[in-house]
Amino acid sequence: TEKTREEWEADRWQDVEYFDSYADLKLHLEMLSDNARTNAYKDAIIQNAESLSNKVVVDVGCGTGILSLLCAKHANVKQVYGVEASDIVHHTQHLIDQNGLTNKITIFKDKVENITLPDKVDIIISEWMGTLLLFELMIESVLLARNLWLKDTGVMWPSDASLYLVPCSATDEYNKKIAFWDCVYGFDFSYLKSFAMQEYFGKPVFNHELKSTDCLDSPLCVLKMKMKTFQIDELEEIVKEFSFKVTKKSTFHGFASWFSVDFGGFNNQNTVTLDTGPTSRLTHWKQDLFMMNDAVQVTVGDKIEGSIVIKRNAEWRRHLVVTFKYQMIFHCDQNIKNFEKTFPLWK
Amino acid sequence: TEKTREEWEADRWQDVEYFDSYADLKLHLEMLSDNARTNAYKDAIIQNAESLSNKVVVDVGCGTGILSLLCAKHANVKQVYGVEASDIVHHTQHLIDQNGLTNKITIFKDKVENITLPDKVDIIISEWMGTLLLFELMIESVLLARNLWLKDTGVMWPSDASLYLVPCSATDEYNKKIAFWDCVYGFDFSYLKSFAMQEYFGKPVFNHELKSTDCLDSPLCVLKMKMKTFQIDELEEIVKEFSFKVTKKSTFHGFASWFSVDFGGFNNQNTVTLDTGPTSRLTHWKQDLFMMNDAVQVTVGDKIEGSIVIKRNAEWRRHLVVTFKYQMIFHCDQNIKNFEKTFPLWK
Ligand SMILES: [Ca+2]
Ligand SMILES: [Ca+2]
Repeated sequence: TEKTREEWEADRWQDVEYFDSYADLKLHLEMLSDNARTNAYKDAIIQNAESLSNKVVVDVGCGTGILSLLCAKHANVKQVYGVEASDIVHHTQHLIDQNGLTNKITIFKDKVENITLPDKVDIIISEWMGTLLLFELMIESVLLARNLWLKDTGVMWPSDASLYLVPCSATDEYNKKIAFWDCVYGFDFSYLKSFAMQEYFGKPVFNHELKSTDCLDSPLCVLKMKMKTFQIDELEEIVKEFSFKVTKKSTFHGFASWFSVDFGGFNNQNTVTLDTGPTSRLTHWKQDLFMMNDAVQVTVGDKIEGSIVIKRNAEWRRHLVVTFKYQMIFHCDQNIKNFEKTFPLWK
Repeated sequence: TEKTREEWEADRWQDVEYFDSYADLKLHLEMLSDNARTNAYKDAIIQNAESLSNKVVVDVGCGTGILSLLCAKHANVKQVYGVEASDIVHHTQHLIDQNGLTNKITIFKDKVENITLPDKVDIIISEWMGTLLLFELMIESVLLARNLWLKDTGVMWPSDASLYLVPCSATDEYNKKIAFWDCVYGFDFSYLKSFAMQEYFGKPVFNHELKSTDCLDSPLCVLKMKMKTFQIDELEEIVKEFSFKVTKKSTFHGFASWFSVDFGGFNNQNTVTLDTGPTSRLTHWKQDLFMMNDAVQVTVGDKIEGSIVIKRNAEWRRHLVVTFKYQMIFHCDQNIKNFEKTFPLWK
């Protein structure tokens, strides 16, 4: 049987795999166990309870319903619409009933693109952030929901999202996966190093734990999105030039990235921020590591100048391809070397 | 096209998935990075170098060739035949050449069941141990190789393998996966506990880190195999009765298991042992946890009496099904409760 255009489109978004991965408890437990994450939303709700009073909220990708429940319990919202396409939602209604908030929360088992609401809403709340902030591209659904259902005066939560980049050393990772092969119980297995580089570092490392002391310069903000106005087609290609100056004698292994999001939009002076960087408490996102093929000795004043390009995969719409292209200018002898590496994330 | 009987047989062994999983470096790095594991083989070879002198060795599932290389370098063996069916073997010959041992080691890219050797051999060395000692049932290939190719006077390495069982508490694991749902940011999510029990503990936990203090009694040896004489059909069903007596006030969550293997067979008084239990250095096998559905308060003198049955899956030949059936007899009031739980590992 021929596929309809809609079915082709669903394939390109890998909707079946995507929503299936959220059907079990595993990912939900991981997210709920991340106190820094969930408490940021909870704190934002509690600190803005007055502004949220009598408002209508949409919770995009509500999962177990935690954000809807927090809104309904801690702020006197008028109504929350929880939207979730994965099968976890079969549990969500139970949890809402069991916690006595049935009248406040309405669950839609569907993609947010497909729902019909009685009227426009005041707030869209969602936890859509993934690896390199954007991966899974759930953000597109959130922005679509905004275009369709948010009042002009409405608020997006998070209201702002920023992606950071820093050159770094990753000595443990390099030693355990690459240098290891130099001497294996007295044997020279170095022949395997190039294979190991491809297998372990051909793609980003999504669960890297970056230490502050691994950073070779201050981080650069490579993307700053105002969620109220950011356009979906701006996701197609994000380009940022960088010029890092190494601040310590170390080994440069690659680049690390992380994000932060803010919960602003109301006239509240204390905006809650969820920061996933190396100076904040570790979250389930940890940090992302883009390991380059060469470990390079660097010293104070060496420069790393070039660009990062984050390109959305034209075919696989939830995927990105990240390219680093830069030169290293060595302070002591003004020697210049060029580097380039492309990382599928994940296709 | 119809499948041949051989193809059906290969399916039941999931040979494609099985050998594919060893084609990348990932599992090999994990095994090689496990110093306790690899050094046990290395120590056994070095300590028995005299006995190994001028002997012919088969290394079943040689992987990157590390055991073959160790034999060739540290003992003056006559010849090593390394047998490996997974694609990793394409690298193995390079590593042997690079380390100057081409003349000592011959690699067969095949299953050991299919190879033809010029003559019977003196030693079969292999690292075939998996979860619950037996999982993957690579042991069958090793025993088949013995039946086909080992001299009557030959030695199996490991020479002996033992599987241990102990009742234990697993408080962290229980709290993080089950008790967690009792109160999630102030909400009652306890409705999800039975689903979580099934999702997280319907099968064994294969990477559990058991502490000595988690053990509620001394471990019991539930299986002791002499590799020289153990018969393949003895793997079909292993039954062992147990009678544990709780030695401390604690919570009983389930059973933990681990194994040890010895490298005996030569007249050497210092037999090397690789022990993966909680009192030894942690290996990549860690320990296995069989979490029961009920957390039961226990105190000194309470009894846990019953049986463990390890049954080989009749259809999926690499898989096992483990059943615990027992009663708990509570010291204080002689109250008796019955329990039973079956764990697929993994089908
Ligand atoms: Ca996410
Ligand atoms: Ca193994």
